[in-house]
Amino acid sequence: MDHPVDQTDKPVSIKENAVFGDLELQEALKSIHPQWGDFCARAAGEAWGLPLIDQRTKALITIAVDVVNANLSGPGAPFEAHVHMALRQGATMNELRELIIFMSVYAGFNKAASAMRRLQEIGAAGKTRFGDPC
Amino acid sequence: MDHPVDQTDKPVSIKENAVFGDLELQEALKSIHPQWGDFCARAAGEAWGLPLIDQRTKALITIAVDVVNANLSGPGAPFEAHVHMALRQGATMNELRELIIFMSVYAGFNKAASAMRRLQEIGAAGKTRFGDPC
Amino acid sequence: MDHPVDQTDKPVSIKENAVFGDLELQEALKSIHPQWGDFCARAAGEAWGLPLIDQRTKALITIAVDVVNANLSGPGAPFEAHVHMALRQGATMNELRELIIFMSVYAGFNKAASAMRRLQEIGAAGKTRFGDPC
Amino acid sequence: MDHPVDQTDKPVSIKENAVFGDLELQEALKSIHPQWGDFCARAAGEAWGLPLIDQRTKALITIAVDVVNANLSGPGAPFEAHVHMALRQGATMNELRELIIFMSVYAGFNKAASAMRRLQEIGAAGKTRFGDPC
Amino acid sequence: MDHPVDQTDKPVSIKENAVFGDLELQEALKSIHPQWGDFCARAAGEAWGLPLIDQRTKALITIAVDVVNANLSGPGAPFEAHVHMALRQGATMNELRELIIFMSVYAGFNKAASAMRRLQEIGAAGKTRFGDPC
Amino acid sequence: MDHPVDQTDKPVSIKENAVFGDLELQEALKSIHPQWGDFCARAAGEAWGLPLIDQRTKALITIAVDVVNANLSGPGAPFEAHVHMALRQGATMNELRELIIFMSVYAGFNKAASAMRRLQEIGAAGKTRFGDPC
Repeated sequence: MDHPVDQTDKPVSIKENAVFGDLELQEALKSIHPQWGDFCARAAGEAWGLPLIDQRTKALITIAVDVVNANLSGPGAPFEAHVHMALRQGATMNELRELIIFMSVYAGFNKAASAMRRLQEIGAAGKTRFGDPC
Repeated sequence: MDHPVDQTDKPVSIKENAVFGDLELQEALKSIHPQWGDFCARAAGEAWGLPLIDQRTKALITIAVDVVNANLSGPGAPFEAHVHMALRQGATMNELRELIIFMSVYAGFNKAASAMRRLQEIGAAGKTRFGDPC
Repeated sequence: MDHPVDQTDKPVSIKENAVFGDLELQEALKSIHPQWGDFCARAAGEAWGLPLIDQRTKALITIAVDVVNANLSGPGAPFEAHVHMALRQGATMNELRELIIFMSVYAGFNKAASAMRRLQEIGAAGKTRFGDPC
Repeated sequence: MDHPVDQTDKPVSIKENAVFGDLELQEALKSIHPQWGDFCARAAGEAWGLPLIDQRTKALITIAVDVVNANLSGPGAPFEAHVHMALRQGATMNELRELIIFMSVYAGFNKAASAMRRLQEIGAAGKTRFGDPC
Repeated sequence: MDHPVDQTDKPVSIKENAVFGDLELQEALKSIHPQWGDFCARAAGEAWGLPLIDQRTKALITIAVDVVNANLSGPGAPFEAHVHMALRQGATMNELRELIIFMSVYAGFNKAASAMRRLQEIGAAGKTRFGDPC
Repeated sequence: MDHPVDQTDKPVSIKENAVFGDLELQEALKSIHPQWGDFCARAAGEAWGLPLIDQRTKALITIAVDVVNANLSGPGAPFEAHVHMALRQGATMNELRELIIFMSVYAGFNKAASAMRRLQEIGAAGKTRFGDPC
């Protein structure tokens, strides 16, 4: 596939669908495992294509999920990809920092500690591993 | 306290802060246990008062947390209170249904099943236990 | 849809695919919420259709997941549906009891307590809410 | 077995070992399922018999675990049994209330809400289902 | 102990009991901490010795548990040991890949991402740290 | 702030309050993120200041929480800080080892494996990253 399309082969922008519109993300998923990456991209793309909640809010929610799951670092951990997705939807690093402060109350300050440190590491690197400045 | 105020005794609306601006919610928390409810209201109110993420988005995030935690029904389960808070911030039941469909991909369809059923029960009742129509 | 089919409209038996081959289960999912039930049935059906792990093993795994998640009772909890699916794949109640004893070591005896009690309740009823004898 | 003994058939008091010394608790576990209850009593009894952390502290820890797991109500949920064990080790209901306030910071206020409400229900009943006054 | 035995000192093969029959695994557990490793080997060995569910299925279930717990990498993480146990029971790497694709639906694609990446790392190394080819 | 104080600016010792009395810990929290560290120190300090459960017991409980959450290693993981806090309250490494053996029954032996290995790593280093001998 050489340009972003949804499942009906309609071209789709990253602002409309953060998964179907982001070939680079889809390639990253498939690089983990082709069949899994394909299944993941289809299911996630369908979920991100639901009409009522905007892409930016959805990106914040996926970060909140990673905090609750303590699924933040180590091989394949999705946290950095979700940070990347949030930044591409216009969120700022300071909003993500606020999100993690907020999550302290709902996931425990102990899980928030891990998340904030990992976020600060990404911020200190100046860009995500997808190349987004942050 | 006879009108909503924040910790500096400044009157605050529910649109500014879904916790400090909602005396009914604060009373519900204190009815569980006065000291705990006070601690919870102060910590949560501070978290909801952070400036960058709007109240409506925060309400959606707390619902997402409940889905991940499978903390949805039974005595004291916060799910219905978070639905109430989302509705008071202008979210619709259909947005919450979409949120749970979205969460299927991130918390597993099995946790989403419990959440969707509980949400539909609230919807079928026509109003939350706080009295919001839904 | 009036007979079990997969996504390519090929008729499929319950022994081949515990989701695509079980219209009753699909209807139960859609009765929670039509759009969610459709998304769930498609994603789960695709997962159950993977060729290398048999349907019976997959059913045991979903029960193990519910134990780890303490997602066992209350509205919409998937545990009883997964018990139903395991029975339809030829598992016996005694195998499911053994599974929960096994899970004690891996999810903690405290989560296993909830699961075993719930399983015994289903057993005492003599049949699942789907009507399978047990 | 007609009097409390450990695995070497040495008589043991409830103050020495909250599991091996509590026949009523062991019977409650076996009433869920005999083989599971036996496995659980042996593994738990061994863990409670470790010498360095006292029985009362261990009881508080099991309650903390239930809060983190949101494994608090519904069939077989261990929370009430752990409350019972803590009371038998000399803890008071007010200590358990404090424990749950403490856990708010570490499990999230949302999980603590469920735990506090369930604890207050037990307190309002005036005794646990094991008959301990509270 | 110089040959695999169960708790009654009966020699036992790895095909009968993946814990009691695998001295190397027992030594690995004891190398973490002797007393803990002994407790773990006894409890796990008893659980793996239950008669109705075969060793291979049990190995797949422990991997599913690790995915749900996001307990996949870092010091002492059990995921690689469970992969090793599954391979010794005759499972193939492709079955384990399928297992993780299946788990995407039940643990969330985000937890599956971490698990698949870690599994691929083990596969890329050509053998587990226990020396099994994969 | 140049000496340990609580929120009313009363000097407080580490034996009275493991958070308000430990400036080094507060600085470590703020070094992750100043605003988050401040929020965390206030909420945690209030929780540790509750009168009925002693500081040492609270420290053991936070370690139990980390085991249940599998939140043990990686950037910002709170486990080592909680080990440090327990040691400063007079707990010994052998008590912490016993705690993790105990937790095997309640969090699963698989999560205990990760915790015990990480604890042994800290022990092997001879001191925590806060400099406490262990």
